[in-house]
Amino acid sequence: MNCEIITIGDELLIGQVVDTNSAWMAQQLNERGIALKQITSVHDDAEHITAALDEAFSRADIVLTTGGLGPTKDDITKKVLCDYFHTRLVPSKQVEEHVRELYKNRPDVLNRLTATQWLVPENCTILPNRVGSAPIMAFTLNSNLSSFNSKLSTLNSKLLISLPGVPHEMQIAMNEQVLPWLTEQLPDMALTIEHRTLLVSGIAESSLAIILDKWENALPDCLHLAYLPKDGTIRLRLSLYADSDKGDAKTILDAQWNQLKDLVADYLIIDEDLPLELVLGRLLLAKGQTISTAESCTGGRLAALLNAHSGSSAWYWGSVVAYDNSVKQNVLGVPAEVLEKHGAVSEETVRFMAEGVRKLTNTDFAIATSGVAGPTGGTPDKPVGTVWMAWATPVGTYAECFHLGSGCLEHSNMSSGCSDISREQITTRACTKALIQMLQILRKIG
Amino acid sequence: MNCEIITIGDELLIGQVVDTNSAWMAQQLNERGIALKQITSVHDDAEHITAALDEAFSRADIVLTTGGLGPTKDDITKKVLCDYFHTRLVPSKQVEEHVRELYKNRPDVLNRLTATQWLVPENCTILPNRVGSAPIMAFTLNSNLSSFNSKLSTLNSKLLISLPGVPHEMQIAMNEQVLPWLTEQLPDMALTIEHRTLLVSGIAESSLAIILDKWENALPDCLHLAYLPKDGTIRLRLSLYADSDKGDAKTILDAQWNQLKDLVADYLIIDEDLPLELVLGRLLLAKGQTISTAESCTGGRLAALLNAHSGSSAWYWGSVVAYDNSVKQNVLGVPAEVLEKHGAVSEETVRFMAEGVRKLTNTDFAIATSGVAGPTGGTPDKPVGTVWMAWATPVGTYAECFHLGSGCLEHSNMSSGCSDISREQITTRACTKALIQMLQILRKIG
Repeated sequence: MNCEIITIGDELLIGQVVDTNSAWMAQQLNERGIALKQITSVHDDAEHITAALDEAFSRADIVLTTGGLGPTKDDITKKVLCDYFHTRLVPSKQVEEHVRELYKNRPDVLNRLTATQWLVPENCTILPNRVGSAPIMAFTLNSNLSSFNSKLSTLNSKLLISLPGVPHEMQIAMNEQVLPWLTEQLPDMALTIEHRTLLVSGIAESSLAIILDKWENALPDCLHLAYLPKDGTIRLRLSLYADSDKGDAKTILDAQWNQLKDLVADYLIIDEDLPLELVLGRLLLAKGQTISTAESCTGGRLAALLNAHSGSSAWYWGSVVAYDNSVKQNVLGVPAEVLEKHGAVSEETVRFMAEGVRKLTNTDFAIATSGVAGPTGGTPDKPVGTVWMAWATPVGTYAECFHLGSGCLEHSNMSSGCSDISREQITTRACTKALIQMLQILRKIG
Repeated sequence: MNCEIITIGDELLIGQVVDTNSAWMAQQLNERGIALKQITSVHDDAEHITAALDEAFSRADIVLTTGGLGPTKDDITKKVLCDYFHTRLVPSKQVEEHVRELYKNRPDVLNRLTATQWLVPENCTILPNRVGSAPIMAFTLNSNLSSFNSKLSTLNSKLLISLPGVPHEMQIAMNEQVLPWLTEQLPDMALTIEHRTLLVSGIAESSLAIILDKWENALPDCLHLAYLPKDGTIRLRLSLYADSDKGDAKTILDAQWNQLKDLVADYLIIDEDLPLELVLGRLLLAKGQTISTAESCTGGRLAALLNAHSGSSAWYWGSVVAYDNSVKQNVLGVPAEVLEKHGAVSEETVRFMAEGVRKLTNTDFAIATSGVAGPTGGTPDKPVGTVWMAWATPVGTYAECFHLGSGCLEHSNMSSGCSDISREQITTRACTKALIQMLQILRKIG
């Protein structure tokens, strides 16, 4: 059962918008055993969309499109699909009632353009769009282009579903309408797809591959290993693709997964595809402990990671972003002499920052960062990418310096060897390092 | 002159990684007058890559690929391209020297897998990859598959360039090698492409489209208007695509651009495609003024936006993320009685927060946020999406409450009418609102 995604929108092809929809949809499809064969991004152009549909249907049984369903002139998907499936637009009472209800407090929005939203192709099935005005359209494509059946029982039937491009609307439509409906339609055709990911740090990608070489060559056909270097770490992903009736597939996966973990034990950080901050939060929550941060070069990004997830207020209490030295001094209590003598990017300063915010916020733990994010500000002594960090704990304060620009270990994970790392990358790597070290410290002090 | 991008990598098709490379490359290509026709994402699979290459070359003259160039087993692009261009791998002294130099301090990385990086297809041109081990390969495809010429002077020649998938390596290769080389090769073929974007707020998308309807219908063929709703605002993008020898194209664009700005004057925030925080920074820098933030629900994201760009330390000094009420009280000076009587999400609290951090950091301006980001925590009085904000200035403190969850004005811009907005979306919208209001206030107080 192959599936493809076609994302429709000029903004993707001029680089004004990053396509996040496809990645999200791909994850959801995989979880339900539907493999994604290709993602194609095309213009809001009738010819281009039509050609992409033809090509996708030559390869896949299910085609999902996103985009082009709004009320404005540049949104043409509905019209193109009408032509593609040889049908015409007719008013839908169901959609009209929904749109009128949606905007009952917004009479200015109920204008003639919005009214076009309740014209729908005559031979499609409408799946409700609870949070938007654009109806979700499902078409079948088979040898006699017959109208929609409630069960797609023959392989001759192919399926197209047209979704809104607005991420929020698309996600709700997928979760509440499309995915349950697909799962119901296609019980016999889904694969067993499972991905397991672990995170390692402290080793170059090629060195890791050599360690794993023999084991990887011996993997059964239904398993596949992938290397995903990122921000100074490597994710290893072991994927299972097997027919659903292959009963022992999971057992095989479990056995190989345990072998993999043994092989990388010296470098293993976590053995699930969870963000580091959630693993940290889980550990803190279990002991009823709290954390704060004092940030200079990471500028609040560490804070944002720590409070990104619902429930974080139980263990994350707050931060001071001390971007200017006056704030390091006046709010965090870093002595003026220390700043003068050692500079902001130093062991002495980050120790004071970490202990300062720990005391100020009355938390059990605190992380401090101070570094040269670049691109300017580097010196021979402290080049761009030099980041000091400190971790204040109930049993003492740890500090360490990292070189996240040129020549660092993890840098070689990306097969790079020079100093041209962007400001954004350095701060992202600093956050990753800060969290990894906090996890290691927590595990050490128990 | 059509161009297409093929991104190679399983991780894209299972949704583990979002494709940011294509958007970046698209922007760069457009700036040099090269239009992008399609973006296709395919698996690390020989058959799939080959089919995608065939299809892309049937439509475009230039094909750029990313991904699959690492030293591990799952990276097969080089081998596939060898077969596609009917050639074989040979050692390259140039690449070997570069890789040995790159890893001169990392003997563990100079292993047998890394050594495969300096095997290159015999009939391609190698463009140096300064920051990585994977050489960038350029192939020509023409009727007699002849070897590479230094000038692509005939339209029968098509071109493929294979780039690393690691964003950092790809960007440097594009900026330093590929784009200058393309620009040199194709001087006669580039279009004049120019995009101008402005940002409006406070009006629904369909209402805006009705205001612009007459003007939009009268636009000349070389101009195209697109609507990009996002985070409670709408970007309007006016794009020019014209042959380079069309001399008056820019004049036409200028005239239409000015007309557009007049039509949307009541809702216009900024008339360039700059992030809001940079516009704010520019205003502050011009007057030698500074800003700080006190954040609860935005959790440091506002801080991160304000210090994302080099040079921000001149005008952004720091923040307090007061996630727990104890931090609001002890660090920012919000009185206990205020928190008890009005709660954290209230006008009284945010006024204290803004004025507190302004005094604490000694800045001219300060922004405070406190709200219900969700998905839990909402009450009938203060549902999810309720966000109070305050702006402390030398001439007084402004405060306002926003409803960024259900039923808000901007929410209708996304043609949505319900409360199902994610935590991430609410905090992002809150940051956008905070910056827009700060800009409006700065313009008002002069």
